[in-house]
Amino acid sequence: MDNMNLNKHISGQFNAELDDIRNRVLAMGGLVERQLEQALDAISNLDAELAQSVIQGDHKVNGMEVSIDEECARIIAKRQPAASDLRLVLAISKTITDLERIGDACVKIAKVALDKRLKKQQPLLVSLDSMGRHATRFLHGTLDALARMDADAAFELHKEDAKLDKEYEATIRQLMTYMMEDPRSIPEVFDVLWATRAVERVGDRCQNICEYIIYYVKGKDVRHVSYEEMEKDLNL
Amino acid sequence: MDNMNLNKHISGQFNAELDDIRNRVLAMGGLVERQLEQALDAISNLDAELAQSVIQGDHKVNGMEVSIDEECARIIAKRQPAASDLRLVLAISKTITDLERIGDACVKIAKVALDKRLKKQQPLLVSLDSMGRHATRFLHGTLDALARMDADAAFELHKEDAKLDKEYEATIRQLMTYMMEDPRSIPEVFDVLWATRAVERVGDRCQNICEYIIYYVKGKDVRHVSYEEMEKDLNL
Repeated sequence: MDNMNLNKHISGQFNAELDDIRNRVLAMGGLVERQLEQALDAISNLDAELAQSVIQGDHKVNGMEVSIDEECARIIAKRQPAASDLRLVLAISKTITDLERIGDACVKIAKVALDKRLKKQQPLLVSLDSMGRHATRFLHGTLDALARMDADAAFELHKEDAKLDKEYEATIRQLMTYMMEDPRSIPEVFDVLWATRAVERVGDRCQNICEYIIYYVKGKDVRHVSYEEMEKDLNL
Repeated sequence: MDNMNLNKHISGQFNAELDDIRNRVLAMGGLVERQLEQALDAISNLDAELAQSVIQGDHKVNGMEVSIDEECARIIAKRQPAASDLRLVLAISKTITDLERIGDACVKIAKVALDKRLKKQQPLLVSLDSMGRHATRFLHGTLDALARMDADAAFELHKEDAKLDKEYEATIRQLMTYMMEDPRSIPEVFDVLWATRAVERVGDRCQNICEYIIYYVKGKDVRHVSYEEMEKDLNL
């Protein structure tokens, strides 16, 4: 009886620890989402001050990655989780890497907002902004699916990246045409190009996180698997 | 006594399992290194056949990622590793993600080799090739440090990325000048640009792997840490 109580107690603490890393990864996601919104605001308004605040804020994202990962390793060593508990810890450990890289993308976008030459090239930023807002919605949805550990939502969101990729390709073609028509503008257009690329990478990262959600909930690794196979395999 | 033998037996099996994932990650690294060499050969000779073989070979890299990761999760669940054994498994689980992404970079490089318009633009490929060979040496050194779990070598290699970044910036400037001088070539130059970018990313991935080697050997997470702090912290 004492043993049973002890087990219950230990398992209560363990659950609290799992809840804690879940909450921390969601807090990290919230921070990254704000960084992305602000980086996009900075670029569409060419607001250097806001851009600087995004660049300076990145160390918080980095710090969260390191501390959550440390906690994940500690939980594995101390609690020896199995089955879905272990999948949760592994999924979180991978998710934070992608969140940190989205944080890096925000810094890249913010740095472009510091390019004063873009003041004369505002029309160049329209497609980037619209693509950026799309990526923000994608990230928001992904974090929502992560909070609810909703594999169906993650599966639907996963497909969203193809749409973002199409928008990306159209934006790149537009930038290319712009360069051909006005070769003197090439250096500025390059800056917009890197920001566009960074936004596209945000979509790839969200897609990775969706795969980890599915891995946690369904116990299946769906990386490199076609949608047909996923639907069949997972009863989605 | 029986128990001791059993423990020894279990631990012998466990060691064999750890050796096995170490060997598998090194085999995966070897495959990725060949993919990178061949992708670069394909682009410098504009060899479409070789490029296709790199593109088709990527599924092997992907398969290795999934199967090694599965084995890592199995070892954690079954063997409940602690201390350096756990760090080894976690470091391997992260390393394979970066190796898989280097594999993706190889596919991107190989796809550019399929662009027939580049036949008229061979001079454009010179800097890319030299940068690519640099990245290949970086990857080779990283895999070597991984095989020997050599933290000192990993620390030295980590700094190599800054040199590759400088080469990358010079190549980008060169491509930009080329575009400005001959705007009709912009579509082809864009292709070279993406390949250049992919090569630069290979360096970032090698740097990540060096960080995991240091994490395993020294038990310290050195992501987002300056070289001064690293040297002080790690007695390197």
